[in-house]
Amino acid sequence: WYLLLNNSVSTMNSAVHSFRFDELIKYVDDHQEEYVQTLREWVAVESDSSDVTKRAELYRMMDMVGEKLRKMGGKVELVDIGEEQLPDGSSLALPKVVTAQFGSDVNKPTVCVYGHVDVQPAQKEDGWATEPYNLTEINGNLYGRGASDNKAPVLAWIHAVEAFKALDMDLPVNVKYLIEGMEETGSNGLDAMIKSQKSTFFSDVDYIIISDCGWLSKRPALTYGTRGNCYFFAEVEGPKQDLHSGVYGGTVIEPMTDLIGILDTLISPSGTILIPGIRDAVAPFSDEEWKMYQDIEFDVESYREKIGVEQLMYNNKVELLAHRWRHPTVSIHGINGAFSAPGTKTVIPAKVTGKFSIRQVPDMDPAVVEKQVTDHLHSVFAKRKSPNKLKVKMIIGAKPWLADIKHSLYEAGKAAVKRVFNVDADMIREGGTIPIARTFQDVTEKSIIMLPIGGFDDGLHSQNEKMSR
Amino acid sequence: WYLLLNNSVSTMNSAVHSFRFDELIKYVDDHQEEYVQTLREWVAVESDSSDVTKRAELYRMMDMVGEKLRKMGGKVELVDIGEEQLPDGSSLALPKVVTAQFGSDVNKPTVCVYGHVDVQPAQKEDGWATEPYNLTEINGNLYGRGASDNKAPVLAWIHAVEAFKALDMDLPVNVKYLIEGMEETGSNGLDAMIKSQKSTFFSDVDYIIISDCGWLSKRPALTYGTRGNCYFFAEVEGPKQDLHSGVYGGTVIEPMTDLIGILDTLISPSGTILIPGIRDAVAPFSDEEWKMYQDIEFDVESYREKIGVEQLMYNNKVELLAHRWRHPTVSIHGINGAFSAPGTKTVIPAKVTGKFSIRQVPDMDPAVVEKQVTDHLHSVFAKRKSPNKLKVKMIIGAKPWLADIKHSLYEAGKAAVKRVFNVDADMIREGGTIPIARTFQDVTEKSIIMLPIGGFDDGLHSQNEKMSR
Repeated sequence: WYLLLNNSVSTMNSAVHSFRFDELIKYVDDHQEEYVQTLREWVAVESDSSDVTKRAELYRMMDMVGEKLRKMGGKVELVDIGEEQLPDGSSLALPKVVTAQFGSDVNKPTVCVYGHVDVQPAQKEDGWATEPYNLTEINGNLYGRGASDNKAPVLAWIHAVEAFKALDMDLPVNVKYLIEGMEETGSNGLDAMIKSQKSTFFSDVDYIIISDCGWLSKRPALTYGTRGNCYFFAEVEGPKQDLHSGVYGGTVIEPMTDLIGILDTLISPSGTILIPGIRDAVAPFSDEEWKMYQDIEFDVESYREKIGVEQLMYNNKVELLAHRWRHPTVSIHGINGAFSAPGTKTVIPAKVTGKFSIRQVPDMDPAVVEKQVTDHLHSVFAKRKSPNKLKVKMIIGAKPWLADIKHSLYEAGKAAVKRVFNVDADMIREGGTIPIARTFQDVTEKSIIMLPIGGFDDGLHSQNEKMSR
Repeated sequence: WYLLLNNSVSTMNSAVHSFRFDELIKYVDDHQEEYVQTLREWVAVESDSSDVTKRAELYRMMDMVGEKLRKMGGKVELVDIGEEQLPDGSSLALPKVVTAQFGSDVNKPTVCVYGHVDVQPAQKEDGWATEPYNLTEINGNLYGRGASDNKAPVLAWIHAVEAFKALDMDLPVNVKYLIEGMEETGSNGLDAMIKSQKSTFFSDVDYIIISDCGWLSKRPALTYGTRGNCYFFAEVEGPKQDLHSGVYGGTVIEPMTDLIGILDTLISPSGTILIPGIRDAVAPFSDEEWKMYQDIEFDVESYREKIGVEQLMYNNKVELLAHRWRHPTVSIHGINGAFSAPGTKTVIPAKVTGKFSIRQVPDMDPAVVEKQVTDHLHSVFAKRKSPNKLKVKMIIGAKPWLADIKHSLYEAGKAAVKRVFNVDADMIREGGTIPIARTFQDVTEKSIIMLPIGGFDDGLHSQNEKMSR
């Protein structure tokens, strides 16, 4: 993987080091076991950022990252990003962000690699075949929590520089690292840190690389877009308190009936968004895009089987991918305040909050979406003539991100994939939101490439997460 | 209150004891403090049947009831009704049911009083002004958990017999008691016990009295009907597991969208049930009923204020009461399987179960309702052409209960209320379901009267429950 760095850089920099390419290859092959061992040590740290009782492990993880980079001769800092407030009112220090720098030659471009070393929760009882924090190799796959998301990709970029250093080869670019420990719970504190270091750490950064994503199939891929996310709360409030449905049912217009009624106006049975105006802003699907989608390696039938549904929303590859990546969609996630447990409680909930989100795509504007959704819901609610009260609020308004795939960064990425795998990279998007990409773009105004290292079947956030050796 | 027993009986029995009426009155007045003291002792027992850690208190409560009745010279039994299975797989003995008998004169009718001495949970921190298990008198009200529901009413019926005994007056009827300790959690074990004692304990019972309900206003009332309850689960199942709404949104027809869509076809914004056929079986609202409803003391505006809504479903007293008591209604209680917590989880739930209930009234038949609801939901679901799977199941099918208010039992009740309060009793119904009434009626085939002793503002199941002195 370090070849990608070398290669992508080589297309931007006339000082091509290809004469020592074979030497690098050999070095990596000779040290593969060491790389796996380092990954094993990192996976053994239960750096679960969602569990405050494991915070000491997370601090230790950040120290290990700093130590690793320091040993390689980097200029390392552990940046204090403050505290988080816990629900009980107490506060807890956030894990420091590790920054590192290798080289400061003003004649070279500077590449910054972003990654994270915190992980999702994992317990063997959840259905793991192996101990989640004990990296275990089975048939060439390395199983362990965080193996693919995102510890191995971070180590791949670190070991790339390490190989250059070990061979005493001049790095063709200046390399910086920004490694955080709160990604899985929303990168708490990172936005502020990026903003505050805009004119210091980021001042000489030209390019940002993110490998916190995955391939779409067995073919290597480059990711050039993510969808945004407008997350809404629609609250309907009626009686002062929950009422017994036997005693009071039939005398009040129930908030739950109103909420169900307005949620039912968001999306048609076949999946068309019914909110007036929402689709008007969506960038037209060009012939060029159609052709590109057509070339992507993606098996609709396997996808259907993996999800386990009888039929997908679209059966055609291009339409399916387009609705996954570059068309908006509405998902209703649930209702807060109503009875949600098993059993048969007979209550009329007094206040219920419907939660739904719209995955946003270029050229939709969250502020416009907020107005369209709010106006629509108030309009359909008004027609019900309900005595209850409706409040609509957009809780998250994360913008989509889209890169120019003709930018030299993507040309370098394509060339690197071609060189290593001898196939053309699939140019893909993510249906989900990676807010950090958008923050990097908005704050630093640098170009970003997402270069996935994880496989399509790595099981991120699931049981039996793995990284192929 | 013992006068009600005396009085109701006197109208059925030629042996009127009215010549000693004043003596009974005096006895009760002289012993009022003792009655309150006994209630204080009973309230002090935390007989919360929903909390298994308090089961010893519940056993002690049943022993106290048995002891009290034994001291009065009754023939008392503590009937073993078996065990309950706890969620962890262990089992726990149910509190025994206390039965007692006073008199077995074949020339007298036999009255059986049903009541319960278990209570709802209560903690001072919930918002009680006083310690919930320390009966506290403020302005003539006795505050404490279980004071009104149902310990004081049970004691009222016990003290009625005690007064006759103390004065060595012949009881005009044979009196039986059936006091249970699991009412608040669904009378676990009681149905089987009633069935098994049909030809023993119940064989000579002529009338059953239940005082586990409340007045509608400040005017005394007799209750002659309750609604039934058909409780449904509608489960929509799609993908094999929950999906990330960013990664998969736009490619699958979401079970939650389907469920919201079908739930929205149950009831109109103004409260009309939309399920075809449901309303056909409802007994017509007669002129006689209309007149009776018109005479009931009930202030619509106070009711509206108490619930805290801007407008009720009906503003007219008769219509409002009719829809509370004798028309069916649909309440949607909630959804199991979707995201219900605070926060902003971005998940597409794979399987969601909507929970709703229909309060049933005469002459609806639960089996017919089950078919109508199931057919309707499958029909609207089929029109959606969804690849997901729908299952509809009726979990509870509790029948309504309705007494003949011209029966001698109600005539006796009316006369008793008139004699004690010098007003005509309001003839009322309960919107909720009291399954035990239906069980008594179906199993024992005896006549039942519900004679509420609790006030309209006693706060059953709430903070600051009380019983007026």
